[in-house]
Amino acid sequence: MPDGDFRKALLGAARKNRSWICVGLDPDPGRFPRGFSRTPTGALSFLLDIVMATKNHVCAYKPNIAFFERWGARGLKALKELIDFIPADIPVILDAKRSDIGNTSANYAKAAFEHFMADAVTLNPYLGFDSIEPFIRYGDKGIFLLCLTSNPSAADFQKQTIALETGEKLKLYQLVARKAAEWNKSGNVGLVVGATHPSELAEIRQMIPDDMPLLIPGVGAQGGDLEESLKAGANSRGELAVVNVSRSVLYASSNDDFAEKAKAEIEKLARSCAGALSAIKSGAAGE
Amino acid sequence: MPDGDFRKALLGAARKNRSWICVGLDPDPGRFPRGFSRTPTGALSFLLDIVMATKNHVCAYKPNIAFFERWGARGLKALKELIDFIPADIPVILDAKRSDIGNTSANYAKAAFEHFMADAVTLNPYLGFDSIEPFIRYGDKGIFLLCLTSNPSAADFQKQTIALETGEKLKLYQLVARKAAEWNKSGNVGLVVGATHPSELAEIRQMIPDDMPLLIPGVGAQGGDLEESLKAGANSRGELAVVNVSRSVLYASSNDDFAEKAKAEIEKLARSCAGALSAIKSGAAGE
Repeated sequence: MPDGDFRKALLGAARKNRSWICVGLDPDPGRFPRGFSRTPTGALSFLLDIVMATKNHVCAYKPNIAFFERWGARGLKALKELIDFIPADIPVILDAKRSDIGNTSANYAKAAFEHFMADAVTLNPYLGFDSIEPFIRYGDKGIFLLCLTSNPSAADFQKQTIALETGEKLKLYQLVARKAAEWNKSGNVGLVVGATHPSELAEIRQMIPDDMPLLIPGVGAQGGDLEESLKAGANSRGELAVVNVSRSVLYASSNDDFAEKAKAEIEKLARSCAGALSAIKSGAAGE
Repeated sequence: MPDGDFRKALLGAARKNRSWICVGLDPDPGRFPRGFSRTPTGALSFLLDIVMATKNHVCAYKPNIAFFERWGARGLKALKELIDFIPADIPVILDAKRSDIGNTSANYAKAAFEHFMADAVTLNPYLGFDSIEPFIRYGDKGIFLLCLTSNPSAADFQKQTIALETGEKLKLYQLVARKAAEWNKSGNVGLVVGATHPSELAEIRQMIPDDMPLLIPGVGAQGGDLEESLKAGANSRGELAVVNVSRSVLYASSNDDFAEKAKAEIEKLARSCAGALSAIKSGAAGE
Protein backbone atom coordinates (compact mmCIF):
# COMPACT_ATOMS: atom_id res chain seq x y z
CA MET A 1 0.00 0.00 0.00
CA PRO A 2 2.28 2.84 -1.17
CA ASP A 3 1.88 6.58 -0.67
CA GLY A 4 1.58 7.69 2.88
CA ASP A 5 -0.17 5.00 4.91
CA PHE A 6 2.01 5.66 7.94
CA ARG A 7 1.18 9.35 7.67
CA LYS A 8 -2.55 8.56 7.50
CA ALA A 9 -2.30 6.37 10.61
CA LEU A 10 -0.37 9.11 12.41
CA LEU A 11 -2.94 11.78 11.46
CA GLY A 12 -5.74 9.41 12.49
CA ALA A 13 -4.32 8.77 15.96
CA ALA A 14 -3.48 12.46 16.51
CA ARG A 15 -6.98 13.59 15.54
CA LYS A 16 -8.73 10.89 17.58
CA ASN A 17 -6.63 11.54 20.71
CA ARG A 18 -6.31 15.30 20.07
CA SER A 19 -2.59 15.07 20.74
CA TRP A 20 0.70 15.35 18.88
CA ILE A 21 2.57 13.88 21.85
CA CYS A 22 4.53 10.69 21.30
CA VAL A 23 5.67 8.73 24.34
CA GLY A 24 9.22 7.38 24.21
CA LEU A 25 9.21 3.87 25.71
CA ASP A 26 12.80 3.80 27.02
CA PRO A 27 13.08 1.51 30.03
CA ASP A 28 15.75 2.64 32.51
CA PRO A 29 15.87 -0.09 35.20
CA GLY A 30 17.46 2.30 37.71
CA ARG A 31 14.27 4.40 37.64
CA PHE A 32 11.54 1.73 37.58
CA PRO A 33 8.79 2.31 40.14
CA ARG A 34 8.72 0.17 43.26
CA GLY A 35 7.83 -3.48 42.62
CA PHE A 36 9.21 -3.94 39.08
CA SER A 37 12.27 -6.15 38.64
CA ARG A 38 15.23 -4.67 36.78
CA THR A 39 14.93 -7.29 34.04
CA PRO A 40 13.42 -7.48 30.54
CA THR A 41 10.27 -8.97 32.12
CA GLY A 42 10.10 -6.13 34.63
CA ALA A 43 10.58 -3.60 31.84
CA LEU A 44 7.79 -5.18 29.80
CA SER A 45 5.27 -5.20 32.70
CA PHE A 46 6.11 -1.59 33.54
CA LEU A 47 5.77 -0.40 29.93
CA LEU A 48 2.47 -2.24 29.41
CA ASP A 49 1.10 -0.28 32.39
CA ILE A 50 2.46 2.96 30.87
CA VAL A 51 0.76 2.18 27.54
CA MET A 52 -2.56 1.45 29.29
CA ALA A 53 -2.32 4.75 31.20
CA THR A 54 -1.43 6.93 28.20
CA LYS A 55 -3.03 5.37 25.10
CA ASN A 56 -5.89 7.86 24.81
CA HIS A 57 -3.59 10.88 24.78
CA VAL A 58 -0.79 10.08 22.31
CA CYS A 59 -0.35 10.16 18.53
CA ALA A 60 2.39 7.48 18.58
CA TYR A 61 4.75 5.44 20.73
CA LYS A 62 8.51 5.43 20.21
CA PRO A 63 10.45 2.56 21.82
CA ASN A 64 14.22 3.06 21.53
CA ILE A 65 15.75 -0.33 20.73
CA ALA A 66 19.01 0.49 22.59
CA PHE A 67 17.20 0.12 25.92
CA PHE A 68 16.20 -3.44 24.93
CA GLU A 69 19.33 -4.48 22.99
CA ARG A 70 21.40 -4.01 26.18
CA TRP A 71 19.78 -7.28 27.38
CA GLY A 72 20.42 -9.13 24.09
CA ALA A 73 17.86 -11.71 22.96
CA ARG A 74 15.71 -11.40 26.12
CA GLY A 75 15.46 -7.66 25.59
CA LEU A 76 14.38 -8.02 21.96
CA LYS A 77 11.73 -10.55 22.97
CA ALA A 78 10.32 -8.00 25.45
CA LEU A 79 10.39 -5.30 22.75
CA LYS A 80 8.43 -7.49 20.34
CA GLU A 81 5.80 -8.25 23.00
CA LEU A 82 5.55 -4.55 23.82
CA ILE A 83 4.96 -3.60 20.16
CA ASP A 84 2.41 -6.42 19.77
CA PHE A 85 0.50 -5.04 22.78
CA ILE A 86 0.21 -1.43 21.54
CA PRO A 87 -3.29 -0.78 20.11
CA ALA A 88 -3.30 -1.19 16.32
CA ASP A 89 -4.59 2.36 15.70
CA ILE A 90 -1.56 3.97 17.40
CA PRO A 91 1.55 3.95 15.18
CA VAL A 92 4.82 2.64 16.59
CA ILE A 93 8.02 4.46 15.62
CA LEU A 94 11.00 2.19 16.27
CA ASP A 95 13.85 4.49 17.30
CA ALA A 96 16.79 2.51 15.91
CA LYS A 97 18.96 5.09 14.09
CA ARG A 98 20.07 2.25 11.80
CA SER A 99 21.82 2.33 8.43
CA ASP A 100 24.34 0.27 6.50
CA ILE A 101 25.27 -0.35 2.87
CA GLY A 102 22.35 -1.48 0.70
CA ASN A 103 22.24 -5.28 1.03
CA THR A 104 22.87 -5.05 4.78
CA SER A 105 20.35 -2.24 5.28
CA ALA A 106 17.73 -4.52 3.74
CA ASN A 107 18.21 -6.81 6.75
CA TYR A 108 17.64 -3.93 9.17
CA ALA A 109 14.48 -3.04 7.24
CA LYS A 110 13.29 -6.64 7.55
CA ALA A 111 13.96 -6.50 11.32
CA ALA A 112 12.05 -3.23 11.83
CA PHE A 113 9.11 -3.83 9.52
CA GLU A 114 8.70 -7.61 9.21
CA HIS A 115 9.92 -8.88 12.57
CA PHE A 116 9.06 -6.08 15.02
CA MET A 117 6.19 -4.90 12.82
CA ALA A 118 6.95 -1.24 13.54
CA ASP A 119 5.06 1.39 11.52
CA ALA A 120 8.06 3.68 11.17
CA VAL A 121 11.77 3.75 11.97
CA THR A 122 14.47 6.37 12.60
CA LEU A 123 17.55 6.18 10.34
CA ASN A 124 21.00 7.78 10.23
CA PRO A 125 21.70 9.47 6.86
CA TYR A 126 25.55 9.42 6.92
CA LEU A 127 25.84 6.56 4.36
CA GLY A 128 23.59 8.28 1.81
CA PHE A 129 20.71 7.23 -0.41
CA ASP A 130 21.47 3.53 -1.02
CA SER A 131 21.49 2.92 2.76
CA ILE A 132 17.99 4.44 3.09
CA GLU A 133 16.38 3.10 -0.06
CA PRO A 134 15.70 -0.45 1.28
CA PHE A 135 13.48 1.18 3.94
CA ILE A 136 11.78 3.69 1.60
CA ARG A 137 10.75 0.73 -0.56
CA TYR A 138 8.25 -0.26 2.16
CA GLY A 139 5.89 2.45 0.89
CA ASP A 140 3.31 2.05 3.67
CA LYS A 141 5.94 2.44 6.41
CA GLY A 142 7.43 5.72 7.69
CA ILE A 143 11.12 6.74 7.69
CA PHE A 144 12.50 9.50 9.94
CA LEU A 145 16.01 10.59 8.92
CA LEU A 146 18.20 12.14 11.59
CA CYS A 147 18.60 15.77 10.52
CA LEU A 148 19.57 17.91 13.54
CA THR A 149 19.74 15.91 16.76
CA SER A 150 18.96 17.18 20.27
CA ASN A 151 22.38 16.48 21.84
CA PRO A 152 25.07 19.15 22.43
CA SER A 153 27.56 17.42 20.05
CA ALA A 154 25.11 17.77 17.13
CA ALA A 155 27.26 20.79 16.20
CA ASP A 156 30.37 18.62 15.57
CA PHE A 157 29.23 17.65 12.07
CA GLN A 158 25.54 18.51 11.53
CA LYS A 159 26.04 22.28 11.88
CA GLN A 160 29.14 22.44 9.68
CA THR A 161 28.88 24.56 6.53
CA ILE A 162 28.87 22.65 3.23
CA ALA A 163 30.16 24.40 0.10
CA LEU A 164 28.32 22.77 -2.81
CA GLU A 165 29.92 22.53 -6.25
CA THR A 166 27.34 25.05 -7.49
CA GLY A 167 28.81 27.66 -5.13
CA GLU A 168 25.85 27.49 -2.76
CA LYS A 169 26.58 27.21 0.96
CA LEU A 170 24.36 25.48 3.48
CA LYS A 171 24.62 23.52 6.73
CA LEU A 172 24.97 19.74 6.64
CA TYR A 173 21.58 19.32 8.38
CA GLN A 174 20.02 21.56 5.71
CA LEU A 175 21.50 19.36 2.99
CA VAL A 176 20.01 16.31 4.74
CA ALA A 177 16.59 18.05 4.81
CA ARG A 178 16.89 18.87 1.11
CA LYS A 179 17.90 15.29 0.21
CA ALA A 180 15.02 13.91 2.31
CA ALA A 181 12.56 15.97 0.28
CA GLU A 182 14.23 14.68 -2.94
CA TRP A 183 14.10 11.04 -1.77
CA ASN A 184 10.46 11.33 -0.67
CA LYS A 185 9.01 9.82 -3.88
CA SER A 186 6.63 7.52 -1.94
CA GLY A 187 5.53 10.21 0.52
CA ASN A 188 6.86 8.28 3.51
CA VAL A 189 9.97 10.24 4.56
CA GLY A 190 10.17 12.53 7.61
CA LEU A 191 12.95 14.12 9.66
CA VAL A 192 14.19 14.11 13.26
CA VAL A 193 14.90 17.61 14.57
CA GLY A 194 15.68 18.21 18.25
CA ALA A 195 13.50 20.54 20.33
CA THR A 196 16.75 22.02 21.62
CA HIS A 197 17.14 23.91 18.29
CA PRO A 198 13.87 25.93 18.04
CA SER A 199 14.98 28.42 15.39
CA GLU A 200 16.45 25.72 13.14
CA LEU A 201 13.26 23.70 13.64
CA ALA A 202 11.15 26.57 12.25
CA GLU A 203 13.61 27.02 9.37
CA ILE A 204 13.55 23.27 8.48
CA ARG A 205 9.71 23.27 8.49
CA GLN A 206 9.86 26.03 5.84
CA MET A 207 12.31 24.01 3.69
CA ILE A 208 10.28 20.80 3.44
CA PRO A 209 6.91 19.78 1.95
CA ASP A 210 3.94 20.72 4.15
CA ASP A 211 2.91 17.06 4.49
CA MET A 212 6.31 15.81 5.70
CA PRO A 213 6.23 14.83 9.39
CA LEU A 214 8.84 16.01 11.90
CA LEU A 215 9.79 13.91 14.91
CA ILE A 216 10.92 16.23 17.71
CA PRO A 217 12.74 14.74 20.71
CA GLY A 218 14.45 16.73 23.45
CA VAL A 219 11.48 18.31 25.27
CA GLY A 220 11.69 18.11 29.06
CA ALA A 221 14.86 16.60 30.58
CA GLN A 222 16.99 17.83 27.65
CA GLY A 223 15.63 21.38 27.89
CA GLY A 224 13.39 21.81 24.81
CA ASP A 225 10.05 23.62 25.20
CA LEU A 226 6.79 21.89 24.21
CA GLU A 227 4.72 24.85 22.95
CA GLU A 228 7.67 26.42 21.15
CA SER A 229 8.46 23.09 19.42
CA LEU A 230 4.88 22.61 18.27
CA LYS A 231 4.64 26.14 16.91
CA ALA A 232 7.96 25.84 15.10
CA GLY A 233 7.48 22.28 13.87
CA ALA A 234 3.80 22.07 12.87
CA ASN A 235 2.80 22.51 9.23
CA SER A 236 0.32 25.11 7.93
CA ARG A 237 -2.59 23.02 9.27
CA GLY A 238 -1.10 22.78 12.76
CA GLU A 239 -0.20 19.13 12.23
CA LEU A 240 2.66 16.63 11.72
CA ALA A 241 4.95 17.87 14.51
CA VAL A 242 5.38 14.71 16.59
CA VAL A 243 6.79 15.83 19.94
CA ASN A 244 8.40 13.04 21.93
CA VAL A 245 8.40 12.96 25.72
CA SER A 246 9.77 10.11 27.74
CA ARG A 247 11.21 10.55 31.22
CA SER A 248 8.61 13.05 32.51
CA VAL A 249 5.81 10.57 31.77
CA LEU A 250 7.51 7.21 32.47
CA TYR A 251 9.08 8.28 35.73
CA ALA A 252 6.39 10.69 36.97
CA SER A 253 6.39 8.73 40.24
CA SER A 254 8.51 5.95 41.69
CA ASN A 255 5.64 4.70 43.85
CA ASP A 256 2.53 2.60 43.29
CA ASP A 257 0.74 5.65 41.84
CA PHE A 258 3.16 5.80 38.86
CA ALA A 259 0.43 4.96 36.30
CA GLU A 260 -1.99 7.63 37.62
CA LYS A 261 0.85 10.17 37.68
CA ALA A 262 1.88 9.19 34.12
CA LYS A 263 -1.76 9.66 33.02
CA ALA A 264 -1.99 13.06 34.70
CA GLU A 265 1.27 14.15 33.04
CA ILE A 266 0.28 13.01 29.52
CA GLU A 267 -3.15 14.69 29.92
CA LYS A 268 -1.43 17.92 30.91
CA LEU A 269 0.94 17.66 27.94
CA ALA A 270 -1.91 16.89 25.51
CA ARG A 271 -3.83 19.94 26.79
CA SER A 272 -0.77 22.18 26.29
CA CYS A 273 -0.39 20.69 22.83
CA ALA A 274 -4.05 21.39 21.90
CA GLY A 275 -3.70 24.94 23.19
CA ALA A 276 -0.55 25.66 21.23
CA LEU A 277 -1.96 24.18 18.02
CA SER A 278 -5.36 25.87 18.20
CA ALA A 279 -3.48 29.18 18.22
CA ILE A 280 -1.77 28.13 14.94
CA LYS A 281 -5.05 26.98 13.40
CA SER A 282 -6.97 30.14 14.28
CA GLY A 283 -3.99 32.14 12.95
CA ALA A 284 -4.13 30.18 9.67
CA ALA A 285 -7.94 30.59 9.43
CA GLY A 286 -7.61 34.35 9.94
CA GLU A 287 -5.07 34.80 7.12
CA MET B 1 42.70 -1.75 31.21
CA PRO B 2 43.04 1.49 29.24
CA ASP B 3 45.39 2.28 26.37
CA GLY B 4 45.20 -0.03 23.45
CA ASP B 5 44.31 -3.53 24.63
CA PHE B 6 42.14 -4.15 21.58
CA ARG B 7 45.00 -3.00 19.38
CA LYS B 8 47.41 -5.36 21.16
CA ALA B 9 45.03 -8.29 20.65
CA LEU B 10 44.64 -7.37 16.99
CA LEU B 11 48.41 -7.14 16.46
CA GLY B 12 48.84 -10.43 18.31
CA ALA B 13 46.36 -12.32 16.13
CA ALA B 14 47.71 -10.78 12.91
CA ARG B 15 51.31 -11.68 13.77
CA LYS B 16 50.43 -15.20 14.91
CA ASN B 17 48.30 -15.96 11.82
CA ARG B 18 50.46 -13.85 9.47
CA SER B 19 47.32 -12.24 8.09
CA TRP B 20 45.54 -8.88 8.10
CA ILE B 21 42.39 -10.47 6.71
CA CYS B 22 39.19 -10.20 8.74
CA VAL B 23 36.29 -12.47 7.84
CA GLY B 24 32.84 -10.83 7.84
CA LEU B 25 30.37 -13.30 9.38
CA ASP B 26 27.23 -12.16 7.53
CA PRO B 27 24.78 -15.04 7.15
CA ASP B 28 22.69 -14.79 3.98
CA PRO B 29 20.21 -17.71 4.16
CA GLY B 30 19.65 -17.63 0.40
CA ARG B 31 23.31 -18.62 -0.11
CA PHE B 32 23.82 -21.22 2.64
CA PRO B 33 25.49 -24.41 1.41
CA ARG B 34 23.37 -27.52 0.97
CA GLY B 35 22.10 -29.01 4.23
CA PHE B 36 21.83 -25.87 6.40
CA SER B 37 18.38 -24.66 7.35
CA ARG B 38 17.55 -21.02 6.61
CA THR B 39 17.07 -20.27 10.30
CA PRO B 40 19.14 -18.75 13.13
CA THR B 41 20.17 -22.29 14.11
CA GLY B 42 21.21 -23.06 10.53
CA ALA B 43 23.16 -19.78 10.38
CA LEU B 44 24.95 -20.59 13.62
CA SER B 45 25.99 -24.13 12.53
CA PHE B 46 27.19 -22.81 9.18
CA LEU B 47 29.22 -19.98 10.74
CA LEU B 48 30.80 -22.26 13.36
CA ASP B 49 32.10 -24.41 10.47
CA ILE B 50 33.40 -21.25 8.75
CA VAL B 51 35.23 -20.18 11.92
CA MET B 52 36.79 -23.65 12.31
CA ALA B 53 37.95 -23.56 8.68
CA THR B 54 39.46 -20.07 8.78
CA LYS B 55 40.68 -19.40 12.33
CA ASN B 56 44.39 -19.89 11.59
CA HIS B 57 44.41 -17.34 8.79
CA VAL B 58 42.57 -14.27 10.10
CA CYS B 59 43.40 -11.29 12.32
CA ALA B 60 39.76 -10.78 13.39
CA TYR B 61 36.14 -11.74 12.76
CA LYS B 62 33.44 -9.17 11.99
CA PRO B 63 29.83 -10.34 12.42
CA ASN B 64 27.35 -7.73 11.14
CA ILE B 65 24.46 -7.61 13.60
CA ALA B 66 21.92 -6.69 10.87
CA PHE B 67 22.08 -10.27 9.54
CA PHE B 68 21.06 -11.55 13.00
CA GLU B 69 18.65 -8.76 14.05
CA ARG B 70 16.41 -9.64 11.08
CA TRP B 71 15.37 -12.71 13.11
CA GLY B 72 14.78 -10.73 16.33
CA ALA B 73 15.56 -12.45 19.64
CA ARG B 74 16.42 -15.81 18.04
CA GLY B 75 18.96 -14.11 15.80
CA LEU B 76 20.65 -12.31 18.70
CA LYS B 77 20.86 -15.56 20.62
CA ALA B 78 22.69 -17.14 17.67
CA LEU B 79 25.01 -14.12 17.44
CA LYS B 80 25.93 -14.41 21.11
CA GLU B 81 26.69 -18.13 20.74
CA LEU B 82 28.79 -17.40 17.66
CA ILE B 83 30.87 -14.77 19.49
CA ASP B 84 31.28 -17.09 22.51
CA PHE B 85 32.63 -19.79 20.17
CA ILE B 86 35.32 -17.66 18.49
CA PRO B 87 38.79 -18.44 19.98
CA ALA B 88 39.68 -15.91 22.69
CA ASP B 89 42.90 -14.82 20.94
CA ILE B 90 41.05 -13.64 17.80
CA PRO B 91 39.34 -10.26 18.32
CA VAL B 92 35.69 -9.86 17.38
CA ILE B 93 34.62 -6.59 15.76
CA LEU B 94 30.85 -6.21 16.06
CA ASP B 95 29.72 -4.37 12.93
CA ALA B 96 26.77 -2.46 14.35
CA LYS B 97 27.15 1.12 13.03
CA ARG B 98 25.34 2.28 16.18
CA SER B 99 25.06 5.72 17.75
CA ASP B 100 22.52 7.75 19.68
CA ILE B 101 22.53 10.63 22.17
CA GLY B 102 24.75 10.02 25.22
CA ASN B 103 22.52 8.24 27.76
CA THR B 104 21.06 6.03 25.02
CA SER B 105 24.45 5.30 23.44
CA ALA B 106 25.57 3.97 26.84
CA ASN B 107 22.96 1.22 26.41
CA TYR B 108 24.36 0.30 22.97
CA ALA B 109 27.85 0.19 24.52
CA LYS B 110 26.55 -2.15 27.24
CA ALA B 111 25.01 -4.39 24.53
CA ALA B 112 28.20 -4.57 22.44
CA PHE B 113 30.78 -4.89 25.21
CA GLU B 114 28.98 -6.38 28.23
CA HIS B 115 26.31 -8.56 26.62
CA PHE B 116 27.85 -9.70 23.32
CA MET B 117 31.39 -9.34 24.74
CA ALA B 118 32.71 -7.97 21.44
CA ASP B 119 36.26 -6.61 21.43
CA ALA B 120 35.45 -3.71 19.12
CA VAL B 121 32.45 -2.09 17.47
CA THR B 122 31.75 0.07 14.40
CA LEU B 123 29.98 3.40 15.06
CA ASN B 124 28.33 6.11 12.98
CA PRO B 125 29.79 9.59 13.71
CA TYR B 126 26.83 11.76 12.57
CA LEU B 127 25.70 12.62 16.14
CA GLY B 128 29.16 13.80 17.22
CA PHE B 129 31.39 13.29 20.25
CA ASP B 130 28.85 12.72 23.02
CA SER B 131 27.36 9.79 21.05
CA ILE B 132 30.79 8.11 20.80
CA GLU B 133 32.16 8.91 24.25
CA PRO B 134 30.21 6.16 26.12
CA PHE B 135 32.05 3.61 23.91
CA ILE B 136 35.48 5.27 24.13
CA ARG B 137 35.18 5.03 27.92
CA TYR B 138 35.70 1.26 27.62
CA GLY B 139 39.42 1.85 27.20
CA ASP B 140 40.31 -1.79 26.49
CA LYS B 141 37.74 -2.05 23.67
CA GLY B 142 38.13 -0.80 20.09
CA ILE B 143 35.96 1.75 18.26
CA PHE B 144 35.85 2.05 14.47
CA LEU B 145 34.14 5.25 13.31
CA LEU B 146 32.59 5.24 9.84
CA CYS B 147 34.71 7.65 7.83
CA LEU B 148 34.34 6.93 4.09
CA THR B 149 32.08 3.94 3.40
CA SER B 150 32.37 1.49 0.49
CA ASN B 151 28.90 2.09 -1.01
CA PRO B 152 28.24 4.29 -4.09
CA SER B 153 26.07 6.75 -2.09
CA ALA B 154 29.00 7.54 0.25
CA ALA B 155 29.40 10.63 -1.94
CA ASP B 156 25.98 12.05 -0.92
CA PHE B 157 27.31 13.49 2.35
CA GLN B 158 30.76 12.07 3.16
CA LYS B 159 32.48 13.59 0.11
CA GLN B 160 30.89 17.03 0.48
CA THR B 161 33.26 19.94 1.08
CA ILE B 162 33.13 21.54 4.54
CA ALA B 163 34.10 25.20 4.90
CA LEU B 164 35.41 25.55 8.47
CA GLU B 165 35.09 28.85 10.35
CA THR B 166 38.87 29.21 10.11
CA GLY B 167 38.59 29.42 6.31
CA GLU B 168 40.03 25.93 5.81
CA LYS B 169 38.19 23.61 3.42
CA LEU B 170 38.11 19.83 3.71
CA LYS B 171 35.81 16.91 2.95
CA LEU B 172 33.37 15.69 5.59
CA TYR B 173 35.17 12.32 5.79
CA GLN B 174 38.45 14.17 6.36
CA LEU B 175 36.86 16.12 9.21
CA VAL B 176 35.70 12.79 10.70
CA ALA B 177 39.27 11.43 10.45
CA ARG B 178 40.63 14.56 12.14
CA LYS B 179 38.04 14.38 14.95
CA ALA B 180 38.79 10.67 15.45
CA ALA B 181 42.46 11.49 16.01
CA GLU B 182 41.39 14.25 18.47
CA TRP B 183 39.02 11.90 20.37
CA ASN B 184 41.62 9.11 20.55
CA LYS B 185 42.81 9.96 24.08
CA SER B 186 42.66 6.30 25.19
CA GLY B 187 44.33 4.96 22.02
CA ASN B 188 41.31 2.84 21.11
CA VAL B 189 39.79 4.69 18.11
CA GLY B 190 40.06 3.52 14.49
CA LEU B 191 38.30 4.32 11.21
CA VAL B 192 36.27 2.49 8.56
CA VAL B 193 37.38 3.35 5.02
CA GLY B 194 36.04 1.43 2.02
CA ALA B 195 38.43 -0.40 -0.32
CA THR B 196 36.45 1.16 -3.16
CA HIS B 197 38.26 4.49 -2.49
CA PRO B 198 41.98 3.56 -2.80
CA SER B 199 43.39 7.07 -3.21
CA GLU B 200 41.37 8.46 -0.29
CA LEU B 201 42.46 5.45 1.78
CA ALA B 202 46.13 6.34 1.26
CA GLU B 203 45.40 9.99 2.04
CA ILE B 204 43.54 9.11 5.29
CA ARG B 205 46.44 6.88 6.42
CA GLN B 206 48.71 9.92 6.10
CA MET B 207 46.33 12.09 8.17
CA ILE B 208 46.06 9.81 11.23
CA PRO B 209 48.45 8.51 13.91
CA ASP B 210 50.59 5.59 12.72
CA ASP B 211 49.16 3.30 15.41
CA MET B 212 45.48 3.92 14.52
CA PRO B 213 43.86 0.87 12.88
CA LEU B 214 41.83 1.08 9.67
CA LEU B 215 38.99 -1.33 8.97
CA ILE B 216 38.66 -1.75 5.20
CA PRO B 217 35.53 -3.41 3.78
CA GLY B 218 34.57 -3.57 0.11
CA VAL B 219 37.19 -5.97 -1.27
CA GLY B 220 35.79 -8.64 -3.62
CA ALA B 221 32.07 -8.46 -4.46
CA GLN B 222 32.05 -4.65 -4.08
CA GLY B 223 35.07 -4.20 -6.35
CA GLY B 224 37.93 -3.17 -4.04
CA ASP B 225 41.39 -4.68 -4.59
CA LEU B 226 43.16 -6.54 -1.76
CA GLU B 227 46.82 -5.68 -2.45
CA GLU B 228 46.03 -2.07 -3.30
CA SER B 229 44.00 -1.70 -0.05
CA LEU B 230 46.78 -3.16 2.08
CA LYS B 231 49.43 -0.94 0.52
CA ALA B 232 47.28 2.17 0.89
CA GLY B 233 45.93 1.35 4.37
CA ALA B 234 48.89 -0.16 6.24
CA ASN B 235 50.99 2.00 8.55
CA SER B 236 54.77 2.52 8.28
CA ARG B 237 55.36 -0.97 9.78
CA GLY B 238 53.04 -2.66 7.26
CA GLU B 239 50.38 -3.21 9.92
CA LEU B 240 46.93 -2.15 11.18
CA ALA B 241 45.09 -2.31 7.84
CA VAL B 242 42.30 -4.77 8.63
CA VAL B 243 40.89 -5.88 5.27
CA ASN B 244 37.45 -7.47 5.52
CA VAL B 245 36.28 -10.19 3.15
CA SER B 246 32.98 -11.96 3.48
CA ARG B 247 31.11 -13.41 0.52
CA SER B 248 34.16 -14.86 -1.31
CA VAL B 249 35.04 -16.94 1.77
CA LEU B 250 31.59 -17.78 3.20
CA TYR B 251 30.05 -18.76 -0.11
CA ALA B 252 33.13 -20.26 -1.82
CA SER B 253 31.02 -23.36 -2.51
CA SER B 254 27.36 -24.24 -2.07
CA ASN B 255 28.15 -27.95 -1.72
CA ASP B 256 29.46 -30.17 1.05
CA ASP B 257 33.01 -28.99 0.34
CA PHE B 258 32.14 -25.40 1.43
CA ALA B 259 34.49 -25.50 4.46
CA GLU B 260 37.46 -26.81 2.43
CA LYS B 261 36.80 -24.21 -0.24
CA ALA B 262 36.52 -21.45 2.40
CA LYS B 263 39.85 -22.61 3.87
CA ALA B 264 41.52 -22.61 0.44
CA GLU B 265 40.17 -19.09 -0.24
CA ILE B 266 41.32 -17.62 3.10
CA GLU B 267 44.77 -19.24 2.67
CA LYS B 268 45.06 -17.66 -0.76
CA LEU B 269 44.00 -14.26 0.62
CA ALA B 270 46.44 -14.51 3.56
CA ARG B 271 49.28 -15.33 1.13
CA SER B 272 48.42 -12.33 -1.04
CA CYS B 273 48.32 -10.23 2.11
CA ALA B 274 51.74 -11.41 3.29
CA GLY B 275 53.17 -10.74 -0.17
CA ALA B 276 51.80 -7.21 -0.37
CA LEU B 277 52.96 -6.35 3.15
CA SER B 278 56.47 -7.80 2.85
CA ALA B 279 56.96 -5.42 -0.08
CA ILE B 280 56.06 -2.49 2.25
CA LYS B 281 58.32 -3.77 5.04
CA SER B 282 61.33 -4.27 2.80
CA GLY B 283 60.66 -0.81 1.35
CA ALA B 284 60.60 0.65 4.89
CA ALA B 285 63.77 -1.26 5.88
CA GLY B 286 65.60 0.05 2.80
CA GLU B 287 64.77 3.69 3.54
